[in-house]
Amino acid sequence: MAIVAATLIERKRDGGALTPEEWRELVRAYTAGDVPDYQMSALLMAIFFRGLEPAELEALTDSMLETGDRLRFDGSGAPVVDKHSTGGVGDKTSLLLAPMVASCGVLVPMMSGRGLGHTGGTLDKLESIPGFRTDLGLRDAEAQVRTLGCAMIGQTPEIAPADRQLYALRDVTATVESIPLISASIMSKKLAEGLDGLVLDVKAGSGAFIADPEKARTLAETMIALGEARGCRVVALLSAMDRPLGHALGNALEVEEAIDGLRGGGPADLMELTYALGVEMLLVAGVAGAAEDARRMLQDSIASGRALDRFRAIIEAQGGNPAVVDDPAALPQAPVERVWPAPRDGIVTRIEPRSVGRAITALGGGRMKVGDEIDPAVGFLLTASPGDRVSRGQPLATILARTEAGADQAAAALDAAVVIGEEADSLPLILERITAAGVEPTGMERTGVERG
Amino acid sequence: MAIVAATLIERKRDGGALTPEEWRELVRAYTAGDVPDYQMSALLMAIFFRGLEPAELEALTDSMLETGDRLRFDGSGAPVVDKHSTGGVGDKTSLLLAPMVASCGVLVPMMSGRGLGHTGGTLDKLESIPGFRTDLGLRDAEAQVRTLGCAMIGQTPEIAPADRQLYALRDVTATVESIPLISASIMSKKLAEGLDGLVLDVKAGSGAFIADPEKARTLAETMIALGEARGCRVVALLSAMDRPLGHALGNALEVEEAIDGLRGGGPADLMELTYALGVEMLLVAGVAGAAEDARRMLQDSIASGRALDRFRAIIEAQGGNPAVVDDPAALPQAPVERVWPAPRDGIVTRIEPRSVGRAITALGGGRMKVGDEIDPAVGFLLTASPGDRVSRGQPLATILARTEAGADQAAAALDAAVVIGEEADSLPLILERITAAGVEPTGMERTGVERG
Repeated sequence: MAIVAATLIERKRDGGALTPEEWRELVRAYTAGDVPDYQMSALLMAIFFRGLEPAELEALTDSMLETGDRLRFDGSGAPVVDKHSTGGVGDKTSLLLAPMVASCGVLVPMMSGRGLGHTGGTLDKLESIPGFRTDLGLRDAEAQVRTLGCAMIGQTPEIAPADRQLYALRDVTATVESIPLISASIMSKKLAEGLDGLVLDVKAGSGAFIADPEKARTLAETMIALGEARGCRVVALLSAMDRPLGHALGNALEVEEAIDGLRGGGPADLMELTYALGVEMLLVAGVAGAAEDARRMLQDSIASGRALDRFRAIIEAQGGNPAVVDDPAALPQAPVERVWPAPRDGIVTRIEPRSVGRAITALGGGRMKVGDEIDPAVGFLLTASPGDRVSRGQPLATILARTEAGADQAAAALDAAVVIGEEADSLPLILERITAAGVEPTGMERTGVERG
Repeated sequence: MAIVAATLIERKRDGGALTPEEWRELVRAYTAGDVPDYQMSALLMAIFFRGLEPAELEALTDSMLETGDRLRFDGSGAPVVDKHSTGGVGDKTSLLLAPMVASCGVLVPMMSGRGLGHTGGTLDKLESIPGFRTDLGLRDAEAQVRTLGCAMIGQTPEIAPADRQLYALRDVTATVESIPLISASIMSKKLAEGLDGLVLDVKAGSGAFIADPEKARTLAETMIALGEARGCRVVALLSAMDRPLGHALGNALEVEEAIDGLRGGGPADLMELTYALGVEMLLVAGVAGAAEDARRMLQDSIASGRALDRFRAIIEAQGGNPAVVDDPAALPQAPVERVWPAPRDGIVTRIEPRSVGRAITALGGGRMKVGDEIDPAVGFLLTASPGDRVSRGQPLATILARTEAGADQAAAALDAAVVIGEEADSLPLILERITAAGVEPTGMERTGVERG
């Protein structure tokens, strides 16, 4: 097999394509240990440079998917839809969308990840709820989705094990940042959820995994083509990650902000993106025929209290303490609380999400490497956004820390992350709506000084 | 170390350069087993696409060289020069040059390789001499070079072990065909010979490792820059490998042809290239001031019998039977001898070296994989060259085989390898002379019909 694999690597290296049968055999042999990591990593690097043709990408994705099990909702009669975000800082939309959309009659088998580096992860946020378990087995998750309309779980070992193995290899061989490899990784897992529809929140801007909006759009288009070819309707929103989303940053703080949103509150940017994604979920599910109808259904899910009730039921079903929904004090609390004041008069020009995200990790609220323990209580509560005019001494954030030394460090991080100057220039919250039919601008504009 | 290596891979992937210290540490860690093969193969593939800057190439070459021992000729007072060929079919110039140049007062520590695939190897040719040993230790080889002016050996385990390990990895990850990696591999071994000068015979044409003359020239220029930066004068001749060199193809047959050349005979193309390479060797050694003087010295080494005597002495010193020099029948003989006649009238348009080389391997005279046993006696004696006008039935080659079935197969291979048509179009024997100062055309022309 070693010689055959070398021939396939050579062909990809020289710009050729592998056949679907070759992809299938390669992924099978790799997961069986018959193709060694050193051949696979050379192939991954060749893919980084040469890309994959659409038929190759479909075959690779299918092959990865077929190495594992999948969720099945045959005979449920309800549409099955999920949302996936490429990750950012302060993004707690999943916590809102899962109960909102489930309470509108859609099945939402939400399979999420953990935070790493500067980005947060939905699983970590959920686990800040005392007792909450995200490690349901596939059959248990299926059963919960059928009864409650939603389960919020991690990637189980049965889902696309080839993706797990390949991702670990990509992580140590500088082959993560490849659009076809990212697409195959995400879509092999998402298609294993047995979806009828998928809404992608593809982030762009300095805090996004892929900062360049052009490349982010290509990623969205690649995943849309991949899903649609497999009978899953896919719509993407390209959204801003050049600043944190919402005000609360840190695991328990974000759960609290999400609950606030489910009660009808929540910061404007968070709620605007949540509604926009929710509208797309109801549209691909087919439970609403037009965007206005979908938005009304979502508003009603909140106004009626159904979404909040559903979240409470999900928490209870997954072993968590449902009291957190009504009493934020039941969430972990940080012992040290310190206000960070504006160092000067001016306009908030920039709040750098990577710096803020790394500061949360430094506080203990994120992980530097897989397996690190995290402190759910720490983080930041921002009280300013890019474009705001502020005065020296005005409180711009509250730091939540484990120790005074941690708070000192976090304050220094904010000194660097929050830039106060003469004008702001932020991305519009939602840049584009992308479907199989093409790209639609949203008409939203960049944030400038006029907002100050 | 895994994390650091990933950072280096990422930088190379994105077109950046590693520092000399980083190359040294990486090669050290790789040979120590602290950087795994899967990271090194990803880096090698990134190098395939991105190349190496001159300072990186020097540092990589030095680092590989420094993982091992080297030959030392301090205080010998004589210049130390070697020749290296990138490999082809029928190339026995090393067998002639080593004794010729050594008998002109130059030390020639000739470290050669084995044949693989369609190409022959000097070590295999030498070992067709009964008893000849090529596995001398480094210190024994040094001593023989000091006394006889020459030793003809293989790459010992003490020479650049990192190259050995990297080459094995490149071979199975489709990362062999990279000009900087080829250059570092060759030059790390050649610089370990303690050379004052090196003459490169870089082959171009369909039978060469790198067929495209432009790329072959780039390889030559890269190796020249690398050697010169390390105080070794390097000159390259770009020579034709779109047809076999000489008439004898196969291990013992090539030894016999080389001895014929050392006696003043030998086919015109073989002797022309041998003299051209020998002239360059004497010039870089500084024992001749001008090409005409160098050529006269080489002619005299043959006319006087000194070169033949030296070859006899080398064979004897390395355990071989010196009688082969005076009696070709002392070399292994193939039991089956069959004439291959021209299938039609016309001009010999092409003798495809890859097909001929693979036919020798099929006869048992080469190896498909490292470690295969080879039959020294088999091969071909050609009696026609591209451009020759031939008549149907005229003998064009003699097949030397172990069995009648082998001869049948070899005849079928010649049917495909030798094309008889209306006109020939071969590369000039020597295309260019390349030095640190630049590229000089040789004035030789392509072979056309006028030769028929």
